[in-house]
Amino acid sequence: MAMKLPWKLVVEWISEGEGCFREIVSVLAEKRTRFQEVMVAELSGLGKSLVIDGKVQSSLLDEHWYHEALVHPVMITHPRPRRVLVLGGGEGATIREVLRHRSVEEVVMVDIDRDVIEFAKKHLGEWHQGSFNDKRVRLVIGDGREYITNAARRGEYFDVVILDLVDPTEGGPATKLYTVEFYEKVREVLRGEGIMVTQATSPTLTPRVYAVVKNSIARVFRITTPYVTYVRSYNGLWGFVTGSDKLSPKELSREEVAKRLRERIGTSLRFYDEETHTWMFSLPKPIRELLETIKDYATDKNPVYVPV
Amino acid sequence: MAMKLPWKLVVEWISEGEGCFREIVSVLAEKRTRFQEVMVAELSGLGKSLVIDGKVQSSLLDEHWYHEALVHPVMITHPRPRRVLVLGGGEGATIREVLRHRSVEEVVMVDIDRDVIEFAKKHLGEWHQGSFNDKRVRLVIGDGREYITNAARRGEYFDVVILDLVDPTEGGPATKLYTVEFYEKVREVLRGEGIMVTQATSPTLTPRVYAVVKNSIARVFRITTPYVTYVRSYNGLWGFVTGSDKLSPKELSREEVAKRLRERIGTSLRFYDEETHTWMFSLPKPIRELLETIKDYATDKNPVYVPV
Amino acid sequence: MAMKLPWKLVVEWISEGEGCFREIVSVLAEKRTRFQEVMVAELSGLGKSLVIDGKVQSSLLDEHWYHEALVHPVMITHPRPRRVLVLGGGEGATIREVLRHRSVEEVVMVDIDRDVIEFAKKHLGEWHQGSFNDKRVRLVIGDGREYITNAARRGEYFDVVILDLVDPTEGGPATKLYTVEFYEKVREVLRGEGIMVTQATSPTLTPRVYAVVKNSIARVFRITTPYVTYVRSYNGLWGFVTGSDKLSPKELSREEVAKRLRERIGTSLRFYDEETHTWMFSLPKPIRELLETIKDYATDKNPVYVPV
Amino acid sequence: MAMKLPWKLVVEWISEGEGCFREIVSVLAEKRTRFQEVMVAELSGLGKSLVIDGKVQSSLLDEHWYHEALVHPVMITHPRPRRVLVLGGGEGATIREVLRHRSVEEVVMVDIDRDVIEFAKKHLGEWHQGSFNDKRVRLVIGDGREYITNAARRGEYFDVVILDLVDPTEGGPATKLYTVEFYEKVREVLRGEGIMVTQATSPTLTPRVYAVVKNSIARVFRITTPYVTYVRSYNGLWGFVTGSDKLSPKELSREEVAKRLRERIGTSLRFYDEETHTWMFSLPKPIRELLETIKDYATDKNPVYVPV
Repeated sequence: MAMKLPWKLVVEWISEGEGCFREIVSVLAEKRTRFQEVMVAELSGLGKSLVIDGKVQSSLLDEHWYHEALVHPVMITHPRPRRVLVLGGGEGATIREVLRHRSVEEVVMVDIDRDVIEFAKKHLGEWHQGSFNDKRVRLVIGDGREYITNAARRGEYFDVVILDLVDPTEGGPATKLYTVEFYEKVREVLRGEGIMVTQATSPTLTPRVYAVVKNSIARVFRITTPYVTYVRSYNGLWGFVTGSDKLSPKELSREEVAKRLRERIGTSLRFYDEETHTWMFSLPKPIRELLETIKDYATDKNPVYVPV
Repeated sequence: MAMKLPWKLVVEWISEGEGCFREIVSVLAEKRTRFQEVMVAELSGLGKSLVIDGKVQSSLLDEHWYHEALVHPVMITHPRPRRVLVLGGGEGATIREVLRHRSVEEVVMVDIDRDVIEFAKKHLGEWHQGSFNDKRVRLVIGDGREYITNAARRGEYFDVVILDLVDPTEGGPATKLYTVEFYEKVREVLRGEGIMVTQATSPTLTPRVYAVVKNSIARVFRITTPYVTYVRSYNGLWGFVTGSDKLSPKELSREEVAKRLRERIGTSLRFYDEETHTWMFSLPKPIRELLETIKDYATDKNPVYVPV
Repeated sequence: MAMKLPWKLVVEWISEGEGCFREIVSVLAEKRTRFQEVMVAELSGLGKSLVIDGKVQSSLLDEHWYHEALVHPVMITHPRPRRVLVLGGGEGATIREVLRHRSVEEVVMVDIDRDVIEFAKKHLGEWHQGSFNDKRVRLVIGDGREYITNAARRGEYFDVVILDLVDPTEGGPATKLYTVEFYEKVREVLRGEGIMVTQATSPTLTPRVYAVVKNSIARVFRITTPYVTYVRSYNGLWGFVTGSDKLSPKELSREEVAKRLRERIGTSLRFYDEETHTWMFSLPKPIRELLETIKDYATDKNPVYVPV
Repeated sequence: MAMKLPWKLVVEWISEGEGCFREIVSVLAEKRTRFQEVMVAELSGLGKSLVIDGKVQSSLLDEHWYHEALVHPVMITHPRPRRVLVLGGGEGATIREVLRHRSVEEVVMVDIDRDVIEFAKKHLGEWHQGSFNDKRVRLVIGDGREYITNAARRGEYFDVVILDLVDPTEGGPATKLYTVEFYEKVREVLRGEGIMVTQATSPTLTPRVYAVVKNSIARVFRITTPYVTYVRSYNGLWGFVTGSDKLSPKELSREEVAKRLRERIGTSLRFYDEETHTWMFSLPKPIRELLETIKDYATDKNPVYVPV
């Protein structure tokens, strides 16, 4: 037969009864770290991809749909972001986007898994593009929540906090980074017009989790702004939530977004611009209704989990 | 073991190396018609779904994300749509949405597969909600292109033409309903401020096809407007294109959309409103660039196909 | 593309990490009974097949590899089988094979699921071939273990008992039909040179279960004889065990098997003959060693289960 | 959820509509050679396994069911095998079994893929157990058919020829090693009571191919003996065929098999003994009928292929 049936697959389960699979065209690198199983592979449809514990974390096909959506709205909304804290984001693509903003003086990046960072430095050059070597970056290996708690205690402040975390799973490493108690700590390290953003799972694949994350942030901050992009590598729409006592990215006009991008970055981005901004902050009605309907929030005692 | 592994699956192939699967919780009805294999089943994640030749056509989970996105932008954009032509749309959900508009006097629905219509009438009550019995509906069993050609010849005119077709596939029944020659026929039956819309496959899963459909329409109409929704049942973003010599849905202000909805329909819809409108017509930058980059169009001699 | 990718699948899980899938070419009939979910479908590779709760029970491709292997060795070994008890065997193929033996005067078939029997009568004609209408057959709807217990109490005797049961699963209907206590009941209804046989799962896919069934029978009967066939529909070698105080099928010479088949049945069978008999009762060394190594047996309190 | 859904899979397609999958627990080594894609991985159900181009070649679970079945029947049947030729068998397990026979003076092993041999030496120690270092082994990298043709020309002779080849596939490297013309060459290098054996695909999964291989050998040798083992790693029964002008393994009595094993090898094997011999050479009736029904044979011009 002339066809080519796939024989080596990554299966991503959305639930016990639903999932997507992609052919592993070739494995480029693999490592079992203390915390997780990490693979860089060429996947059918996505190209070079980072897979952790069976979940595609990002792929060359559309990592910019995710990383630019995560970073730029809060950075553009803040009047002058100088000190930025990033939790997670091992690929180095989140700090790469942060560093594009000329106002940035220091980025502290905290990741729990040293091996993943080493692995990314070596195998994910297309993602980090050397960002780990930027003088403005300070890398901390350790627990993100602990870092923030200590930072608050010693009076360290940030303008922007970016939470680029794995999904909350039962027994997983990030579960306590999606609770009211944690967001209270985040609020403590944000100064003045500080603003935070977190990835918040999918509003369509795990709608309850998305709403719970939004509600948990809303219990801590005066202004909570949910927004949505699409990431094919994640099999659907993908949600974020910002929290701040002063700022809302949704209030920015298209003209203001365009102007700030021009002034602060200069070169044009691959995904984010004023029209993309409008797209992300205009939620389709069913997502708005979801967010109005669900009232639950997550605490350390009652955390929220994605199903698989 | 306590878990429940799925054992009856629908697999939807995106390419030879990529796909999604869903558990068939139960089969509700099945039929092999002269043209296609039709199944109504309860699917994991999607609920009750219509599957034709292995492709989920729509599910109760989000058929409104598709049908409202297809119908309402052109209907709202037209100043007073009275006569509407629908090709395809066997579930009856497209005419259901058309009929909500009080100005509508006649809807002609043309579908090639009588068995699918009979099947839908019987098994898809949640979709059509009795629309096939509405006095304004005239159902024609036959080839859509032939119908339009004859309509043009005998001087029959429509305000809105809605193309709710299966994807173009090699040897498939709808391939000649995505070509320049066909759109020329469509233009002939549109009177005055007439406007057409077609589903146009996915801008992210089959980007070239999406761009080719847009370009083919742009060769015929003065104004071509691409827009995008998301349909989880289709595994990604989903695209549409409108064509008209006078009208562009993108030009409508939020206020005007809200006003017309209020005046023409009255009750609120499940998916479409002015913010959803903004969301659909604001394209993320990579899709805009895709549409600028690809120049190909489809003709009867050089049609376009989705890969599987 | 010219190829034909499968889109409707039955997946048979061997464990959480292993399984086989087959395309559902068409569903012929489906029913959810009080006890189980039953489907008759045309499957790729197997042809028309009966699937219960996600497990292929038998297919036209090779149901004779299973049913003839189950029935004929004990029937041929017994000097003159007149009264035969069959538990399970809803397809009607087990009684079909029993009825080929001219000495048979009565077959009592006990099955718990009336709906499965009705379903089989209607949709599995190729299997039962009218056997349910044979005057020698008495069909009892009820619990097999209860039936045997009552039969023993009222002094009812059989020459051959054939256990054509679903695999023992946690919470499943047949778990108490694979225990020492149950085999003691079976022994009570066997008269004189009586002999029983049970399907015993796969010696290679679930080796421990196979050995436990063999050991459980060995605690009750003087002579226990394991043997093995292959059933592609079950994805591997398939095991049986006979129990008797007097008879062992393995002791029969090839000539004696051939002679008895000639005298008692006349027409030739599709699978079973003297060479097939030799094949089934000659175990490959690893299976013999498995049976020597494992000492466990199953009781009502400590039953045995297949993993999924 | 407590369960563990598999996310990295090897899928082995039996046809376009049928296949088996196994979880890749971990990849131990991978290499793309000039001829094929080679992987050593821990697979669910099978343990450490060699996978070439998506086909499991052997696994620690049951490589002895294959390699002992391939090697020992012909070795035991030959009165005194001194010079043995092995084509293929890159794992080194075939020569490992040959070397157990004390009479062996020289084993020539010919394999086309130097990289596979190097890979096996390094990663498949459990298979070859150092056999590549045995002084009686001569390794030749090259085309097997060419080697035999040249050997015949220069008058080199062997007692036993063992064909441990990949299946014949369209465009694959082994297709011309299953034809009448090739077996004629094999016959030329066999002296006196020489005997050959080839793996012959599955009599149940690819029955026509199995029969064609048997018929092709039968056109060249006076005595052709088909036999069958089971290999779970290959998803079914697995067939072999011997060819010789003088010898038939089937004629050996159980006692003779036992005696020769004792005298020639001494220590007991894991799979093969006199009862296993009986099992392998007693074919179930449907396989015998298959071999009687199909009359085709393969030539260089009309070769035979497995479907995928």
